[in-house]
Amino acid sequence: MKAYILTIGDEILIGQIVDTNSSWMSRELNLNGIEVVGKGSVGDNARAIVEGIEQASAVADVVIMTGGLGPTKDDVTKKTLAFYFNSEMGFDEGTYALIEQYFNKIGRAIPDSMRDQATLPVRARILVNKVGSAPGMWFEEKNKIYISLPGVPFEMEYLMRSEVIPRLLTCFARRPIVHRTILTACEGESAIAKRLEAFEDSLPEHIKLAYLPGIGQVRLRLTGVWHGTVMEETSNQLEKEVEQKKMELVSLIPEIVYGFEEESLPVVVGRILLEKGLMLGTAESCTGGYIASQITEVAGASAYFNGSAVAYSYELKEKILGVQSATLSTYGAVSEECVREMAERALDALGVDVAIAVSGIAGPGGGTTDKPVGTVWMAVADRTKTYSKRVVFGRDRVKNIQLTSTYALSMLRQFLLG
Amino acid sequence: MKAYILTIGDEILIGQIVDTNSSWMSRELNLNGIEVVGKGSVGDNARAIVEGIEQASAVADVVIMTGGLGPTKDDVTKKTLAFYFNSEMGFDEGTYALIEQYFNKIGRAIPDSMRDQATLPVRARILVNKVGSAPGMWFEEKNKIYISLPGVPFEMEYLMRSEVIPRLLTCFARRPIVHRTILTACEGESAIAKRLEAFEDSLPEHIKLAYLPGIGQVRLRLTGVWHGTVMEETSNQLEKEVEQKKMELVSLIPEIVYGFEEESLPVVVGRILLEKGLMLGTAESCTGGYIASQITEVAGASAYFNGSAVAYSYELKEKILGVQSATLSTYGAVSEECVREMAERALDALGVDVAIAVSGIAGPGGGTTDKPVGTVWMAVADRTKTYSKRVVFGRDRVKNIQLTSTYALSMLRQFLLG
Repeated sequence: MKAYILTIGDEILIGQIVDTNSSWMSRELNLNGIEVVGKGSVGDNARAIVEGIEQASAVADVVIMTGGLGPTKDDVTKKTLAFYFNSEMGFDEGTYALIEQYFNKIGRAIPDSMRDQATLPVRARILVNKVGSAPGMWFEEKNKIYISLPGVPFEMEYLMRSEVIPRLLTCFARRPIVHRTILTACEGESAIAKRLEAFEDSLPEHIKLAYLPGIGQVRLRLTGVWHGTVMEETSNQLEKEVEQKKMELVSLIPEIVYGFEEESLPVVVGRILLEKGLMLGTAESCTGGYIASQITEVAGASAYFNGSAVAYSYELKEKILGVQSATLSTYGAVSEECVREMAERALDALGVDVAIAVSGIAGPGGGTTDKPVGTVWMAVADRTKTYSKRVVFGRDRVKNIQLTSTYALSMLRQFLLG
Repeated sequence: MKAYILTIGDEILIGQIVDTNSSWMSRELNLNGIEVVGKGSVGDNARAIVEGIEQASAVADVVIMTGGLGPTKDDVTKKTLAFYFNSEMGFDEGTYALIEQYFNKIGRAIPDSMRDQATLPVRARILVNKVGSAPGMWFEEKNKIYISLPGVPFEMEYLMRSEVIPRLLTCFARRPIVHRTILTACEGESAIAKRLEAFEDSLPEHIKLAYLPGIGQVRLRLTGVWHGTVMEETSNQLEKEVEQKKMELVSLIPEIVYGFEEESLPVVVGRILLEKGLMLGTAESCTGGYIASQITEVAGASAYFNGSAVAYSYELKEKILGVQSATLSTYGAVSEECVREMAERALDALGVDVAIAVSGIAGPGGGTTDKPVGTVWMAVADRTKTYSKRVVFGRDRVKNIQLTSTYALSMLRQFLLG
């Protein structure tokens, strides 16, 4: 099954937004064995949309459109789809009832414009949007499928996961495909690739290894695609084979693997804390609360996270953490001494069993010859021991903050697992 | 002049990377009065590239391609362009000399593969790449221009700025275009659209208003495109006209406008704090440090941000903020009483002039009939006054955290401006 993604919206063509939707959709479709053969973007105008659809359907079986459905878009996309699929527009009571429900839930009066939101091409099969007001639409014509989704990322993602992908998978006979994702932290793509070179060469033709680098993290994805005759046992067999290769891979780089599939480092760390019945706290300087916010993004974090002291100034490092003034004046805030004291003092200050502390120079300013921009000291402590280390990242402030968080959480994970 | 952007590379179609190049290019082209009429992405294969070029040249005067030029790409793009423009391939001494120079500069031996990098379609005009090894190429055919650039962002950006845009501007007479973006927070797209309905209807044909919704924020973009004869004064005149409409728009929704163009709410708030010489702190419960991390993402935040107490538990609300135990037991943590006390106590606890406090139920669990998931109390206090308010968001944890941050920062902004 071949898919084409068509994004609609003037904001894309003038470069006001970065189109993250189409890369998310590509990844999701590929993971489900649906090949993306092309992408296109057009503005909010009828002729361009029609041309885009024509070009897309020339190369693909499924055309997935996003955007152009908001209440202020003047309905160009909807009207164009009605025209293109030769359909009347009609008011859809069911959709309107759902929009009413949605507005009730968020406690707001329903605006008049929502009557337009519920006016849709009658030929469309409606994809119910439970997280927003613009429904998705599904058209079929001459053995091709055309889908229109809202452009708001979480609404699009909701509809893709709950409606579009499950329906597509039932429409087309697929070739068995198995994915396994291995999550690693604190080692670069090329370094990992070197360690896995022999393993990669040993993989059979139908299993591939892909590197998906992130910030301080690399996801390794093994994909097995069955090309031979499909028997009853094929899927199980392929599953077993890929699983075995996964275990082999993990055994080659055990110390940097923190999890699998869609897990995140904060989720993994949270699970370990919960299992051990430990409470965590963070004492943050250069990350400014970013580590705490990553931990608390996970639902249920209150069971193992007590809180954080974001001590951006010297004053607060003394005041809320109790770091000694002599430590700060002798070694400075970005020092092993300071960060160890921050972690140790945080145990009492935050009433926790284990604490992370970080202090560094996020940049772009503030670097010295001894401590260039990107220098970060981090420590993890419990009542019996304190580990600390220094890392030097790059010059980009936001990236330095994110890297520090990944390295510190990874350090905590290793600390907890001994 | 109409342009089309064609990105080439399998990594785009499998969603392995987010295509930031094409949005950067769109913005840059638009700022220079070159309209982008479409975008497309194709994989690293000859037929798809040719189809992509054909589709692009059907709607545009200029086709700008990026990607597909790396040393591991097997030269598909280059060979395809040679085929398409009916050109021989030839070794280009000048390009090779520059690549040699480049490798000398970065202190590395020149790899053999660089001879291939210097083998180019002879019909191409070479665009000299001083920051990498793959040169750009420029073809002209039947009054259309075709440009091929490397996909590495900073190499592409260098070539766009130093070669492509200056050359394009001399090739075509341009239509003046002016953009103004107005940033708003805490009001939905439809509600704003209603307030601006009469204004929008009153806009002249050549000025358009677009809505770009985000999480808790909507950006409003006014775009003026001149269609008449271009005189010496046209650009200035159009600029004035759009600026005037901008001021008119702002006067209709003054309380929700927080800034213009590329600013963010934390940047705007930081500037006000700096101007007033005030130090800020945050006392966060449900946001778990997210507000502090948003503030400290801005370079130089230490000049106006002292730190944060992330008090996730009752215990820490008492311990590091000094909230009275009676307040918590009588009213609960998610209450007006608690959040006001958190803000007021934070002034001393964090040694600051003004403090934000938030406490709420981010979800997905923890809601009650009185206080459903999404209920958030927030307060801002200085030494003389405390403002508080309650907002009820939705059921999505991460979105609730982000919305809380936007609403709280917006509340702080209004508090500071009186």
